[in-house]
Amino acid sequence: MPDTLSKTFAALADPTRRAMLARLSKGQTNVSDLAKPFLKDMSLPAVTKHLKVLEKAGLVTKTREAQWRPCKLNSAPLKDAASWMEQYRRFWEESLDRLEAYLKTVTANTSNQNTKGKQHGRKK
Amino acid sequence: MPDTLSKTFAALADPTRRAMLARLSKGQTNVSDLAKPFLKDMSLPAVTKHLKVLEKAGLVTKTREAQWRPCKLNSAPLKDAASWMEQYRRFWEESLDRLEAYLKTVTANTSNQNTKGKQHGRKK
Repeated sequence: MPDTLSKTFAALADPTRRAMLARLSKGQTNVSDLAKPFLKDMSLPAVTKHLKVLEKAGLVTKTREAQWRPCKLNSAPLKDAASWMEQYRRFWEESLDRLEAYLKTVTANTSNQNTKGKQHGRKK
Repeated sequence: MPDTLSKTFAALADPTRRAMLARLSKGQTNVSDLAKPFLKDMSLPAVTKHLKVLEKAGLVTKTREAQWRPCKLNSAPLKDAASWMEQYRRFWEESLDRLEAYLKTVTANTSNQNTKGKQHGRKK
């Protein structure tokens, strides 16, 4: 039985499921409307299976409204996954700082060489 | 062939692999030291397989330093995954706002009822 965070990441590890979440981020919709854009590339059972994975991970919930049962995005598992990721933020920020420092050195060296080149040119 | 984001999420969908990243976030280490804490629960080939998944997803890179090849955390894929998640931030923040508003209503109602109860008590 996988832990909650593993279920969330596994559910997100598919472009169709991420596209479904993107659609639901625009508002709730019923299953057939949610499925429609994917039916040109895959069967209805395949789409339903993807939706089930999202439901099991708690990323999508089916609400009940009179006659229909619209699907709704549930962001709580995304929040937990984002919190887990936050602990690594300093690493990618450090990488960007290092890249910036490196680019500054390269730019400084290039402009030094250009200046030297011009001075050399003047001496001729 | 899965896309980069799917590979990142799939690699993160396992507690052993997340624990390996947590270890590497403390500094680079060689494979045997990285594997050690996991060998009480699984075989060396199983640990190596997990490490391969992390390497294929670009989350771990093996550097070369004289005699040894230490493993190093590479945060770039985590940055991309976190950026993808950011687009959903407003949903969990809205949920928290709604929860806060609800709790305020409940607290206000409870304190109103307590005040009424006390007034009623005084009248007796």
